[in-house]
Amino acid sequence: MLQWDMAAVMPDGGAAARGEQMAELREVAHELLVDEEVGEWLRSAREDAVRDGAEAWHLADLDEMERDRRHAVAVPPALVARHSRAASACEIEWRGRRDANDFAGVLPSLREVLGLVREIAAAKAEAFGTTAYDALLDEYEPGGSSAEIDRLFAELSTFLPGLVDQVVEKQRAEGAPAAPQGPFPVEAQRRLAERVMRGLGFDFAHGRLDTSHHPFCGGIPEDVRITTRWNEDDFLRGLLAVVHETGHALYERGLPAAWRRHPVGRARGMSVHEGQSLLVEMQVCRSAAFLGWLAPVAREAFAASPPRKSGGVVGRAGMADDGSWSTAALRRRATRVARTLIRVDADEVTYPAHVILRYRLERAMVDGALDPADLPGAWRDGLREILGVEPPDDRTGCLQDIHWYAGAFGYFPTYTMGAMTAAQLFDAARRAAPRIEAEIAEGRVDSLLAWLREHVHSKGSSLSTHDLLVQATGRPLDAGIFRRHLERRYLRDEAA
Amino acid sequence: MLQWDMAAVMPDGGAAARGEQMAELREVAHELLVDEEVGEWLRSAREDAVRDGAEAWHLADLDEMERDRRHAVAVPPALVARHSRAASACEIEWRGRRDANDFAGVLPSLREVLGLVREIAAAKAEAFGTTAYDALLDEYEPGGSSAEIDRLFAELSTFLPGLVDQVVEKQRAEGAPAAPQGPFPVEAQRRLAERVMRGLGFDFAHGRLDTSHHPFCGGIPEDVRITTRWNEDDFLRGLLAVVHETGHALYERGLPAAWRRHPVGRARGMSVHEGQSLLVEMQVCRSAAFLGWLAPVAREAFAASPPRKSGGVVGRAGMADDGSWSTAALRRRATRVARTLIRVDADEVTYPAHVILRYRLERAMVDGALDPADLPGAWRDGLREILGVEPPDDRTGCLQDIHWYAGAFGYFPTYTMGAMTAAQLFDAARRAAPRIEAEIAEGRVDSLLAWLREHVHSKGSSLSTHDLLVQATGRPLDAGIFRRHLERRYLRDEAA
Repeated sequence: MLQWDMAAVMPDGGAAARGEQMAELREVAHELLVDEEVGEWLRSAREDAVRDGAEAWHLADLDEMERDRRHAVAVPPALVARHSRAASACEIEWRGRRDANDFAGVLPSLREVLGLVREIAAAKAEAFGTTAYDALLDEYEPGGSSAEIDRLFAELSTFLPGLVDQVVEKQRAEGAPAAPQGPFPVEAQRRLAERVMRGLGFDFAHGRLDTSHHPFCGGIPEDVRITTRWNEDDFLRGLLAVVHETGHALYERGLPAAWRRHPVGRARGMSVHEGQSLLVEMQVCRSAAFLGWLAPVAREAFAASPPRKSGGVVGRAGMADDGSWSTAALRRRATRVARTLIRVDADEVTYPAHVILRYRLERAMVDGALDPADLPGAWRDGLREILGVEPPDDRTGCLQDIHWYAGAFGYFPTYTMGAMTAAQLFDAARRAAPRIEAEIAEGRVDSLLAWLREHVHSKGSSLSTHDLLVQATGRPLDAGIFRRHLERRYLRDEAA
Repeated sequence: MLQWDMAAVMPDGGAAARGEQMAELREVAHELLVDEEVGEWLRSAREDAVRDGAEAWHLADLDEMERDRRHAVAVPPALVARHSRAASACEIEWRGRRDANDFAGVLPSLREVLGLVREIAAAKAEAFGTTAYDALLDEYEPGGSSAEIDRLFAELSTFLPGLVDQVVEKQRAEGAPAAPQGPFPVEAQRRLAERVMRGLGFDFAHGRLDTSHHPFCGGIPEDVRITTRWNEDDFLRGLLAVVHETGHALYERGLPAAWRRHPVGRARGMSVHEGQSLLVEMQVCRSAAFLGWLAPVAREAFAASPPRKSGGVVGRAGMADDGSWSTAALRRRATRVARTLIRVDADEVTYPAHVILRYRLERAMVDGALDPADLPGAWRDGLREILGVEPPDDRTGCLQDIHWYAGAFGYFPTYTMGAMTAAQLFDAARRAAPRIEAEIAEGRVDSLLAWLREHVHSKGSSLSTHDLLVQATGRPLDAGIFRRHLERRYLRDEAA
């Protein structure tokens, strides 16, 4: 809630005090968890559970508690506090330096954060018997391993560069899609977004939509807060951010109420979480079926907004009948592929390249093979090699993402694991419930949401990511399903 | 922040979980504070401070820490938790029952809360060597005593009933003041409120204005959040709530930065706090000087708002030149006195009667002399005796205030102590800085705020309420100054 508040409503002058508040809460929580007595409680609870043949959920709950405590006791409290404060300070520094394109200015802070992250990683690696990077990854992706990521990313690398070439060439031949002319008033965008959210099953009695610099999903299952940012020239950007965050929100809201406030009642991990958001954004909302429903609804939403004066002519935003509101035009805009510099603006075909670059760089930094001073050059070289483009400055290069500056290393790969998870879950859901596509063509997802509630959301953390996926889809994470999804949509223009 | 969020932005469905979150945080904070080790630290810090001749602020900081811990250790943690949960549940129950005018429905919850409050009061009274009521009062008004309250309230009772009679008679003879016709669009009200807040010294880089069912001031000195509620038919109500909360906000913002996060850096207590809000609302903003500035500014604020259709005629809100926008009319509206049923809507002349009634009733409940089942009758009888009016139902009687249902007993007297404090501080400030009135006539309070910063805000909790007032004004709390203020304004129509 404090994080949501900081991003959505806090006045700037509250930043320093908020950083202290959050660090203090983290420290107190950490101290409670590492108390030796808690370790004894867990040992004795485990003995009782084994002796009494406790149900699987109860045992999984103990697993999760032990995992939390394993992470907590591996790191001395003073190191946790130093990392927390350094990361808060670096994040604030980064905001100013990013805008000024001044990597050198934030380098000392980043170096300090990385040093503390490496100390934490080393402590955890020793305690868990893993590599340093895997110890960090485990925070976001429990049970995840760089060996599996390497294998999956290697498979992506076999077909993605060629696919990007083909799609870019195909779309170049088709010409640029027509876009309706704005401005699109924020209030009309918000009303449209709320209508779409309701169709996707978002419950406003237990959640909110707000505005922040970067879209995110926060809160708790009973009170899920999502944010977006609005662009008066392009309503599609804010709306697609909304449906992405709605996917996260539906997962949180669908977590098992019976295990509320228990570790086993939490979301499984970041790849499953991102799988939910990308399932809604990429699989559902960028599909031809959904966009066919959306195109007239969006047109009507902005036709109803007050007339705007523009160049002396009073008219309604983008109502000219130039085909820009057609389903075909909307679909081409929503599936436009381009080799670009900014990850958060990237399409689903080039996105994995951005992630693979960051994964390689953060592994090298954690392993000590890449000094942060060399990050800008490594970024430029890496992006050129992997995607064929090169940022002209650091603002559009290694300063663009908050993660490292906020102390988060080991998070990036979960985005692309999530994209693969989304494709695989959607594929299984559609085979199980063929009505899904017809419903999507009406702007709703009742059958899909019911399937997700049953096979994903309600499972909480009772299964490993691997077992969850195998039980829901019949197989472990498979890059081939993601590949077939991209080929169908981007090369063969199939409806889904 | 969680409380602000709950009142200002939380979706209804988050209420139960929020109650649990706040109870959990309170319990954790309580457990940390009562730890035996903390007691040893305090004893040893006190010895060191005495031996080393520590500065007064450091000693006062230890006093406050000891006071916090004295309150905490006096009550078993399980009792704190039971009270916290029962009060949350009762508060939710009360919201529905108040609207349904169903006192019997909330009685079981209230009885449970009162029982727990009485247990807490008994435990604290034994530990502190005070009466049960004074032990509760000390939470809100450190060092306060019912003996002093009895003395001051007895003095008020000697002149207030006669004064109310005289003022009501005088105002009846003058006839009802003309009020400008709404509607007053909320956005225009908000812009006017923000302009007034800026003139009063509110710093929007460190604070916000929002909307909630009941106006309040929350947050921390670096991020002060105030709320109001807007009435489209009467802009004065929302605006006066804003300036009241702005008074609270200025106090928080002016607390000593050097002692931030230390107990001695906190506000002194509720009577000083209410003294700040009532100083701004009653002494400054309902004065003829301020209203003379406000009248044309407000008129302009609503003249600039978009025209409204009303009864087929398009016109601007209340722009008819019927004298309703004159300073004289605004002043008569802002100083209207009436014997009414609702405390939060009462004027400053009848307000003390509402407080004295609640003080008598809550003392009787805490002492066990009044069973909560008899509260509705005691309320009706008491209000008739003290103010000459009787509520037709409990919704406008003993169900109107949240305090008891939310578990707060011992809070009410601070409102009227605050009104007297406000009059006394303003009297002293004007004598010290005669420019104050001329500035107020320009909608600003630079000299007054500087005086308050120096003599009140920057003192934090380094002085007792008594010493703070004596150092700032030369004398202890004196009902005579409040009396003279009321007589000047309401009987003699003097400018202030």
